[in-house]
Amino acid sequence: MGRWQPGAEMRLAQAGLELFLEQGYECTTVADIAQRAGVTPRTFFRYFGDKREVVFAGGPALQAHVVAALDAAPQDLPPLQAVHRALDAVGDLLTDRDWSCRRHAVIISHAELQERELSKLSALSTALAEALRRRDVDAAEAALTAETGVLVFRTAFERWIAEPAERPLADVLAECFVQLRVLAGGWTPPPG
Amino acid sequence: MGRWQPGAEMRLAQAGLELFLEQGYECTTVADIAQRAGVTPRTFFRYFGDKREVVFAGGPALQAHVVAALDAAPQDLPPLQAVHRALDAVGDLLTDRDWSCRRHAVIISHAELQERELSKLSALSTALAEALRRRDVDAAEAALTAETGVLVFRTAFERWIAEPAERPLADVLAECFVQLRVLAGGWTPPPG
Repeated sequence: MGRWQPGAEMRLAQAGLELFLEQGYECTTVADIAQRAGVTPRTFFRYFGDKREVVFAGGPALQAHVVAALDAAPQDLPPLQAVHRALDAVGDLLTDRDWSCRRHAVIISHAELQERELSKLSALSTALAEALRRRDVDAAEAALTAETGVLVFRTAFERWIAEPAERPLADVLAECFVQLRVLAGGWTPPPG
Repeated sequence: MGRWQPGAEMRLAQAGLELFLEQGYECTTVADIAQRAGVTPRTFFRYFGDKREVVFAGGPALQAHVVAALDAAPQDLPPLQAVHRALDAVGDLLTDRDWSCRRHAVIISHAELQERELSKLSALSTALAEALRRRDVDAAEAALTAETGVLVFRTAFERWIAEPAERPLADVLAECFVQLRVLAGGWTPPPG
């Protein structure tokens, strides 16, 4: 185990995304990514199992952050509102919309990365459902609530990066939760 | 191109699932599946690209059936209700709960199959969103409505196969749509 290199993981992730967009995902090797990041391939493999994992750097930290926010939400919030509160915390970490756009562009052009992304979101949903169980929500309701929250988040995220003008992710998320209420319950938002 | 063999596709799918459960997915070859189904490997490859595809036999027909049901739903139904109506039509095709249970057991034990299943459900959602656009629902609402419908369907399906006693899939689906309304809108179902 060599020396720990401060920032190497994010530098590798940044280098990977740049290269995937510049020269294509297939044509990019681990050696290319390591070189661009100024480290050895050996250092690359200290952080990532393969080049695909570069796209998902930061995912575990993000999931832990969201789950912690759900655990910290007031106990008397209804389940979906607690999940909304937790997902709002993603905005603390996803502050660079350009990075998110580039990452999304790489993912949507590769079925293998899309499948992996769906799988990671499914894991986030499972973790949120477990956190809801700790709040004494019953299992069936916890699963549906968590999945619904992740779905609304995914919709909001895609809308956020597609819009020409940047606004806070939390605003888009709130808008999507309102839209869900309307379509699910026939509830009409107050005018203005 | 050899003779078309009536029922060969479903016979191969049935044989594949049986073998995956009996001897494991990894240990089962295309030759094993073909032999169990009483056809040659050459016939296998007339219907499927690889053994993984066996698990997803019937998927395109199911998607086409659901989309046709959405197109046929009354124009004045609110979007999510029209999607509910369309998903009800899945019950016409998924009549064999044992088959569905076996298929699910194979999928959840293999990450690669789970990822593929999520990807197929995502494609169903895209097709439903396109059908909603044909009903003049705006793009953002169509996407969220379709995704929500597919999520509720997936939840209902998992609940349906997990329950000890069998009841119609449509009943479980209706129950899950009520649950969604409650959690999304704070709407309370009438007592009794």
